[in-house]
Amino acid sequence: MNRNVIREVREKSPLIHHLTNQVVMNFTANGLLSFGGIPAMANAVEEAYDMAMNANGLLINIGTITPLEVKAMIAAGKAANEKGIPVVLDPVGVASTPFRDTAVKQVLHEVKPAVIKGNAGEMAYLAGIPWETKGPDSVGEGNSAEVAEKVAAIYDTAAVVTGKVDMFCIGNDLGENTTGHPFLTKITGAGCLLGSILAACLTTDQPLKQQINTALSFYGAAAEYAACLPDVSGPGTFLPCFIDALSLDVGKLEVHE
Amino acid sequence: MNRNVIREVREKSPLIHHLTNQVVMNFTANGLLSFGGIPAMANAVEEAYDMAMNANGLLINIGTITPLEVKAMIAAGKAANEKGIPVVLDPVGVASTPFRDTAVKQVLHEVKPAVIKGNAGEMAYLAGIPWETKGPDSVGEGNSAEVAEKVAAIYDTAAVVTGKVDMFCIGNDLGENTTGHPFLTKITGAGCLLGSILAACLTTDQPLKQQINTALSFYGAAAEYAACLPDVSGPGTFLPCFIDALSLDVGKLEVHE
Amino acid sequence: MNRNVIREVREKSPLIHHLTNQVVMNFTANGLLSFGGIPAMANAVEEAYDMAMNANGLLINIGTITPLEVKAMIAAGKAANEKGIPVVLDPVGVASTPFRDTAVKQVLHEVKPAVIKGNAGEMAYLAGIPWETKGPDSVGEGNSAEVAEKVAAIYDTAAVVTGKVDMFCIGNDLGENTTGHPFLTKITGAGCLLGSILAACLTTDQPLKQQINTALSFYGAAAEYAACLPDVSGPGTFLPCFIDALSLDVGKLEVHE
Repeated sequence: MNRNVIREVREKSPLIHHLTNQVVMNFTANGLLSFGGIPAMANAVEEAYDMAMNANGLLINIGTITPLEVKAMIAAGKAANEKGIPVVLDPVGVASTPFRDTAVKQVLHEVKPAVIKGNAGEMAYLAGIPWETKGPDSVGEGNSAEVAEKVAAIYDTAAVVTGKVDMFCIGNDLGENTTGHPFLTKITGAGCLLGSILAACLTTDQPLKQQINTALSFYGAAAEYAACLPDVSGPGTFLPCFIDALSLDVGKLEVHE
Repeated sequence: MNRNVIREVREKSPLIHHLTNQVVMNFTANGLLSFGGIPAMANAVEEAYDMAMNANGLLINIGTITPLEVKAMIAAGKAANEKGIPVVLDPVGVASTPFRDTAVKQVLHEVKPAVIKGNAGEMAYLAGIPWETKGPDSVGEGNSAEVAEKVAAIYDTAAVVTGKVDMFCIGNDLGENTTGHPFLTKITGAGCLLGSILAACLTTDQPLKQQINTALSFYGAAAEYAACLPDVSGPGTFLPCFIDALSLDVGKLEVHE
Repeated sequence: MNRNVIREVREKSPLIHHLTNQVVMNFTANGLLSFGGIPAMANAVEEAYDMAMNANGLLINIGTITPLEVKAMIAAGKAANEKGIPVVLDPVGVASTPFRDTAVKQVLHEVKPAVIKGNAGEMAYLAGIPWETKGPDSVGEGNSAEVAEKVAAIYDTAAVVTGKVDMFCIGNDLGENTTGHPFLTKITGAGCLLGSILAACLTTDQPLKQQINTALSFYGAAAEYAACLPDVSGPGTFLPCFIDALSLDVGKLEVHE
């Protein structure tokens, strides 16, 4: 973990604009606030460009996408590319329906993400590698390093494949993260919030690999920390403690490990 | 309670597709995940049919319905009927506006639900029985067994009327559930999440009456269990503990009673 | 604080209709329920007028506004004005984009709010006073009393400017509230829920100044109470305890101070 990434996020309070799904908006906003960023969320095509132009980073998450939102995502993404702020794309459930497949293709045709982040099922789909999924979840097993490499190569972007071990790839450079906790699979939006945390870390002046690695390892360490607290006895009580943990100093989480 | 219903849900992790209201999406998703199902949520007409075709059950909840969502509900409902997976319809606030009345009629004209579930005010409205309501809440008193019977007869479906005592009716067979806790009336979406839990239980291979009875009694028992925990001092602290309790074994909840 | 305001809210359980943003719907509904009101939320233009006609108060919050929702806000606002129930307008992020500026102007052209409530950046924008903002947050410093006075004068309404010290103005009469806690700035929707609590207090038979002052001081006192609880160690654990605190008796909160 590069502590400067976390320190810079908290010094700068980056404004991250979100075009994200309705299920996780509140959780994402609270998680990012606790971590040190400032969330903005809006869906209207009419202001998508302006909202992104005001921001320091942009998250595009297709979880509950509609045709109008595809247009808003493209407008916001173009603004982000013009302004030179990082875009994180989370292709939630892209393998589930032709509509999602088309939507992601349309976004990727017009917007250049800094990072594409998804679970193995989603990323394998983007890489053209067969993988078993169940709704928004990835249930198959396979070589997620290969998936990360292939997405990075095809889309000329950094790729993050989340899972029990997270794999990421920048160019030909592979990395992995082993922090995390099974509770993250028992709450909705754990992956979605990670996209927001990633976007915040990408606004710092540190090297890309360290930004990604720090976002992943901090996020997983916060989950481990929260899961071990005496007040946590299930996914419901894990949630508020996890939000708290996202605000902690790196030192506190590392001592804990 | 039929423990096999709960056991089967947890073994199968049924994927429940939701066309539900924006207020409760996050709570519903977390509650269903904790209980043992997998939530999918999406609103776009363009993928409604496909999403339902991927699923094991479907919840239609009209809480924040729009004209486009009515179309998505019908498309998803038709897919569910074709595929033979259970549909639960929750006619939230149907008595409040002509728009809701029309929306529910349109859905019922094209989709055959396995269960219609609502509070007494909503279900009485569907049955043509006068009942006092206040916004989304039922405040009147009356014969909810009669309401359940009439909805079941008119719509040729199972009917669940929630309240202090829940009444349900399948054909001519009436049942009731007395578990529950007043905190369920002080949090938003308690009824909405129950619809999702019901849909999950309907995907099991147990008899319909036991599926419904088990969903209701487990849900109410989980609320009772959570409400008595020492950390709970109001509706806010009840919420995370209730989510936790939905993940418990039947035995743990029953011992508690 | 005027205890009668709180008492009347809890006796009457006012139904507050909300046209509010997707990020805060769940939190707002749970907060208002805990406080003693009943939330209704719906976005469709087709039922906006009817929903407001059923209600005792109306909150209009433009946080995730779309062109269709502007129409729904106007329809609901007209119903509220016709019926004579109070309207609270929360111009979230109005300074961020021309789209929001136009939306608020359209609403204010057709709807007469009882109270306009926003942070200093939003309210200064409405008053034509320069102020620094960052996304939805106000980060500048200046004379918020002047801002409140000017909004009240220009729009012929009561004006509430939230901040470390809340300022409010009715005609030429200024007031302030000093209760509150920094955690309110680390959770999403604290201002949005306050709009809902304000709307509930405006449905009572007490003088307007006492309604506003009581809403603000109760809300801030509940935050102070929750923040000091031993179970609270960050914004995540603050949230459920704050929801709980909104249900408390005035006496319990005042003793605590």
